[in-house]
Amino acid sequence: MKIDGTPYRCVWVEPSDGWSVRIIDQTRLPWSLEFLRLTTVTQAAHAIRSMQVRGAPLIGAVAAYGLALALRADPGAEAMERAAAMLNATRPTAVNLRWATERMLTRLRNTAASDRAAAAYEEAGLIADEDVAQNQAIGRHGVELIRIVHAATDRPVRVLTHCNAGWLATVDWGTALAPIYTAHEESIPVEVWVDETRPRNQGAFLTAWELGRHGVPHTVISDNAGGHLMQRGAVDLVIVGTDRVTRSGDVANKIGTYLKALAAKDNGVPFWVACPSSTIDWAVSDGLTEIEIEERDASEVTTITGRGLDGKVTTVRVAPSGSPAANPAFDVTPARLVTGIITERGRCTADAAGLAGLFPERA
Amino acid sequence: MKIDGTPYRCVWVEPSDGWSVRIIDQTRLPWSLEFLRLTTVTQAAHAIRSMQVRGAPLIGAVAAYGLALALRADPGAEAMERAAAMLNATRPTAVNLRWATERMLTRLRNTAASDRAAAAYEEAGLIADEDVAQNQAIGRHGVELIRIVHAATDRPVRVLTHCNAGWLATVDWGTALAPIYTAHEESIPVEVWVDETRPRNQGAFLTAWELGRHGVPHTVISDNAGGHLMQRGAVDLVIVGTDRVTRSGDVANKIGTYLKALAAKDNGVPFWVACPSSTIDWAVSDGLTEIEIEERDASEVTTITGRGLDGKVTTVRVAPSGSPAANPAFDVTPARLVTGIITERGRCTADAAGLAGLFPERA
Repeated sequence: MKIDGTPYRCVWVEPSDGWSVRIIDQTRLPWSLEFLRLTTVTQAAHAIRSMQVRGAPLIGAVAAYGLALALRADPGAEAMERAAAMLNATRPTAVNLRWATERMLTRLRNTAASDRAAAAYEEAGLIADEDVAQNQAIGRHGVELIRIVHAATDRPVRVLTHCNAGWLATVDWGTALAPIYTAHEESIPVEVWVDETRPRNQGAFLTAWELGRHGVPHTVISDNAGGHLMQRGAVDLVIVGTDRVTRSGDVANKIGTYLKALAAKDNGVPFWVACPSSTIDWAVSDGLTEIEIEERDASEVTTITGRGLDGKVTTVRVAPSGSPAANPAFDVTPARLVTGIITERGRCTADAAGLAGLFPERA
Repeated sequence: MKIDGTPYRCVWVEPSDGWSVRIIDQTRLPWSLEFLRLTTVTQAAHAIRSMQVRGAPLIGAVAAYGLALALRADPGAEAMERAAAMLNATRPTAVNLRWATERMLTRLRNTAASDRAAAAYEEAGLIADEDVAQNQAIGRHGVELIRIVHAATDRPVRVLTHCNAGWLATVDWGTALAPIYTAHEESIPVEVWVDETRPRNQGAFLTAWELGRHGVPHTVISDNAGGHLMQRGAVDLVIVGTDRVTRSGDVANKIGTYLKALAAKDNGVPFWVACPSSTIDWAVSDGLTEIEIEERDASEVTTITGRGLDGKVTTVRVAPSGSPAANPAFDVTPARLVTGIITERGRCTADAAGLAGLFPERA
């Protein structure tokens, strides 16, 4: 997608040298746009661990390029396995990370050491390109939902989203935002309600920033406002991403997603979940009992980082000292509240039959 | 209630001089506890307008004392009417404000100028004492709900609340928190989940502070977390306050209340609303179509105030510059989601029959 008119991906090989890896430092957004140049696998691992890159698909692609950097320095089998282990250890729960390093190793273990670095760059490029293609396909399947509303109303289509499942979470296009960017490309007018998404504010910090820089009309709201907006008929459609979908259609996503799904159901607003099929966990059926919810540090609730009037990025405390806080990071939206899933193969109902229909080889 | 062991009200007459009016400056909470001394009606009006005092019952009591200050300076009829008009103009939507000044004027217009100041102090004192008595009654009727859960489980009762309907919003005891303080006095163990309540953070800033200073166990959570906690069985009861209840039981309250009511319904968690009968608007039936929702300034969403690591209270921007924000301040929870209303006369179902049963003279 574009930043003020210039197209970018979230990870790419620096064209001037043909080997170093460039990323956007997402810990600095939305306050400043800074590009980092990764030259070692250690730097790549640090970028993932410190969340300079985040979002499962993007983490996988950066890990793949990290392995390429490692092999450029030392193409030996031992160094390769050590580099993969280092990358895998950065974020233990991200499924795409292990998937990407496994895919790389499968190819590279059968490649002569002298050819490994070149093969690694090629495979990492394929992983990145496939992510983009998958997200574009999600965009094509999802934009139909927006097109239908626009055709029926002839006014901008108001889509609410939670957290960040935009191009910043992937190599490009995003998942939940892919249908929105596709609509924007096709000149279907869209207006996005962006939940700020406390406590980490990925909505206000990342989603609002990427939509704004690409030129998509949007409005930031507190997480509390979505139900009211749906009651007043101001939301045509909800589209969110997901961290894990069970084979029965339950959806784990950023904390607060469940509340928006309840409000959508109560007001007859379609509630869609966009994800690549790699996010479907075919081994799990009941999201509420089988998905463990990460409890993150209380300081994410009791403090917030923003830009002061002096221009400096500052962290302030927003709870009384002495008041404890709890910070469950995700919740599970039961399938009964989900209108459907948008995948790279098309849309389906959020249930075992719907998912099995699109992915018969997995069900 | 107590602040670190010392009992306070939110407004009182300074005992050392017998006439000046003391308040807690709530704009400085939770960062510092500062008491203000009001000596003129202009100062009282400023305290209400600038939200040094807030919460409908407290505003009414401070306005009543403001009129007493005015009459101490000039007991003439013209000055009295001018002072009442100035107080009424501070917060045009607060029902209790006009109710309190009307009650004061009704008594004072029939009082000789020479007796007016003394009568005004007496009437203001009655208004304050009646507020406290009403809230204590709400506490007695509400604590039964907590007692029943404790008797059945023999463990601390986990109550979730949204925004601040505590003693800081009233003269003392609060509305939603009155049952909680009553339970605490009766040694029934309670643990309160405090929604931070973006965008103005009255939960984290005021509710957490007053519970903490009084010694009531509590945990601050992001507004997104409540649904998840209810799904996992971590909430026994929701109690919130309200700005207006329709005669059919619809409840207008701080934005986000509706989302918690939906989650409570979905998980079989009782959802109670506590208010004095003055909050019931007998002229309004359908909350969704008849209650206008205040749209407040976008800066409340795009900025947040907290305490920096340097100890200074600082306002930081938490949305990208260029991203607009919307800020509806209240929402309406339909009566069908409300388990019941707790009033000074007892509990009732949230419907026309329930409310009419408790208040037959109004229905």
